[in-house]
Amino acid sequence: PDRQTGEDGGPGTGTEDESSEFGQLASVPHGPRLGIGMDSCVIPLRHGGLSLIQTTDFFYPLVEDPYMMGRIACANVLSDLYAMGITECDNMLMLLSVSQKMNDKEREQVMPLMMKGFRDAAEEGGTSVTGGQTVINPWIIIGGVATVVCQPSDFIMPDGAIPGDVLVLTKPLGTQVAVNAHQWLDNPEKWNKIKLVISKDEVEHAYQEAMLNMATLNRTAAALMHKFNAHAATDITGFGIIGHARNLAKQQRNDVAFVIHNLPIISKMAAVSKAGGNLFGLLQGTSSETSGGLLICLPREQAARFCAEMKASRASASCARAQEGTAGDGQQAWIIGIVEKGTRCARIIDKPRIIEVPYRGAVAATQEGNSHGASPPEAQAALA
Amino acid sequence: PDRQTGEDGGPGTGTEDESSEFGQLASVPHGPRLGIGMDSCVIPLRHGGLSLIQTTDFFYPLVEDPYMMGRIACANVLSDLYAMGITECDNMLMLLSVSQKMNDKEREQVMPLMMKGFRDAAEEGGTSVTGGQTVINPWIIIGGVATVVCQPSDFIMPDGAIPGDVLVLTKPLGTQVAVNAHQWLDNPEKWNKIKLVISKDEVEHAYQEAMLNMATLNRTAAALMHKFNAHAATDITGFGIIGHARNLAKQQRNDVAFVIHNLPIISKMAAVSKAGGNLFGLLQGTSSETSGGLLICLPREQAARFCAEMKASRASASCARAQEGTAGDGQQAWIIGIVEKGTRCARIIDKPRIIEVPYRGAVAATQEGNSHGASPPEAQAALA
Repeated sequence: PDRQTGEDGGPGTGTEDESSEFGQLASVPHGPRLGIGMDSCVIPLRHGGLSLIQTTDFFYPLVEDPYMMGRIACANVLSDLYAMGITECDNMLMLLSVSQKMNDKEREQVMPLMMKGFRDAAEEGGTSVTGGQTVINPWIIIGGVATVVCQPSDFIMPDGAIPGDVLVLTKPLGTQVAVNAHQWLDNPEKWNKIKLVISKDEVEHAYQEAMLNMATLNRTAAALMHKFNAHAATDITGFGIIGHARNLAKQQRNDVAFVIHNLPIISKMAAVSKAGGNLFGLLQGTSSETSGGLLICLPREQAARFCAEMKASRASASCARAQEGTAGDGQQAWIIGIVEKGTRCARIIDKPRIIEVPYRGAVAATQEGNSHGASPPEAQAALA
Repeated sequence: PDRQTGEDGGPGTGTEDESSEFGQLASVPHGPRLGIGMDSCVIPLRHGGLSLIQTTDFFYPLVEDPYMMGRIACANVLSDLYAMGITECDNMLMLLSVSQKMNDKEREQVMPLMMKGFRDAAEEGGTSVTGGQTVINPWIIIGGVATVVCQPSDFIMPDGAIPGDVLVLTKPLGTQVAVNAHQWLDNPEKWNKIKLVISKDEVEHAYQEAMLNMATLNRTAAALMHKFNAHAATDITGFGIIGHARNLAKQQRNDVAFVIHNLPIISKMAAVSKAGGNLFGLLQGTSSETSGGLLICLPREQAARFCAEMKASRASASCARAQEGTAGDGQQAWIIGIVEKGTRCARIIDKPRIIEVPYRGAVAATQEGNSHGASPPEAQAALA
């Protein structure tokens, strides 16, 4: 789930319930344990030192393409496991609500595509959907429950950062700004605010780029966390990079502080945020992300190789169908900050360097129109 | 989850997603496996012959008392595990949406009570809530995800019924009729239809009885399934007793048919259903139940003792707080039908015997006003 207790995230962002306190009885199995507050819960089991790790997430559509929305929802659920360095998922349940406002035709067009996107992403994550629950609701809801049973060596508890580590981010920021800018194409008043800094074509490309990023699994990053001895990680979702960095910092065993120097942002989204009047606080790190990258604390001497292997990995060309026709290369990752001695807090320096991340999919999207292999236009209209 | 593929259950009842087909790869662990269609999914794990069993359910409030609603939601989720003879739950996640239509005061009154009810029922089930997801939505949603990792001997696959077995039901039917009749107290037109067969006091008692039953865990029944060698079971929820009986019959390995002779129904609800024009098809077995009893196929010679132990068991005085001031005795169970040779179908005989189940809680409810130890009146009004 999105983490952060106590805040009211509003539609589309999650807040987590408080923990109950029955976990301390004598008969409870020993082992690492993680309750409310981080990406997944970790429950020691009664069998052979195994742990049950699971997470749930559900939210409302934010892109118009039902197939891609399904992929994004699944990627977002799995990401909570990936943030713990877990690469396998034993089971996935799907949570779905059909909107009561859809007519039969819209329903028949939209829901199977959304479910297919979800299932395809689950398959890419090496798991499958075995059940779930569907209800009728005023709004469409899509989400899931990811569960794995594994040995302690299979996961990395998010509490081992030490001074001298560096912070790596595996996807660019700016998805919320891109999605909103795209909606503003149809809203002249809003569009007027940003049209001096971006063209309509660029908005379209930024939106496609955001969609591809959100649909990309963090699975390769999870695998490389083990290879390069990651000390802690979280994934960036509803509370923006600074919210999640702070949450991760609080969780640390050592007296550390996270300092962020660089902000990799989907190209032009920093300018759009500024033109829109500091839209969503993107440059302050508060803008919501959906299915964002992992923020990983890595030993300094291993971080560059981590990024190089991310980039090299074909497996991390994750959203495979989405990338047909593109270079098929890996996923960019950036060293964005450092871990120093401190009081379990996180901050962005005064004038962070903005890294403009170009639109990967631009060529393919222009040439093929529907290059992400996704839903027909009429199905997209129904979600719009 | 509520089972039944492909049907559209409407608000409050669940339909299950179709399965994907990635489960047959060579590397997949061996063991009993259950996908879509029954109460829980069963996934063989990679470790020590263990199985992952989980289920999810979420739905909308149907009683006015938030505390009791929380209990009912949790009992309904756990019931899918209990239907497989599983008595332990390793982890519970809570799924919640706050209604956007509630003001701050309503929200502060209602949501903590609902969460407390859910947690109390989870505690009674020997588990605790370690996480979840909360969103804002037009309607309140409450539900959960129950997960257990166990040995094959800990659960009973729902496919072993044989001719000669009998069918046992562990809670009376009629919750939907009782909840609706209670709403009709405020609807003169509807009330006029049924007032000749029931008094307002009786409606109140029937509603309390339904609420107590829905909040009662099927955990004792799950334990007794092992002791008395149950061959298969399911729990009765959104599709009524005949829907779930049919679904269970389809699942059987042997050529069997289920024939239901007796319908235990909360007192007067059969008359209300008739007076209302065959309301919800209660006597045909199609009326939805929420958190209903288990329907269990038991060897004929063991069924009477199963029922006797249900009745004797103090542990099955499940909703403990709810029963303060009452006798504190166990839960009634009834032999309601037989398993004969057949084509994996189920039916109710032409003129089933209606067993009028008296209102357990009537005395306490009258004497103590708020005997179920639940929510203050203003909190109930907010859900009404």
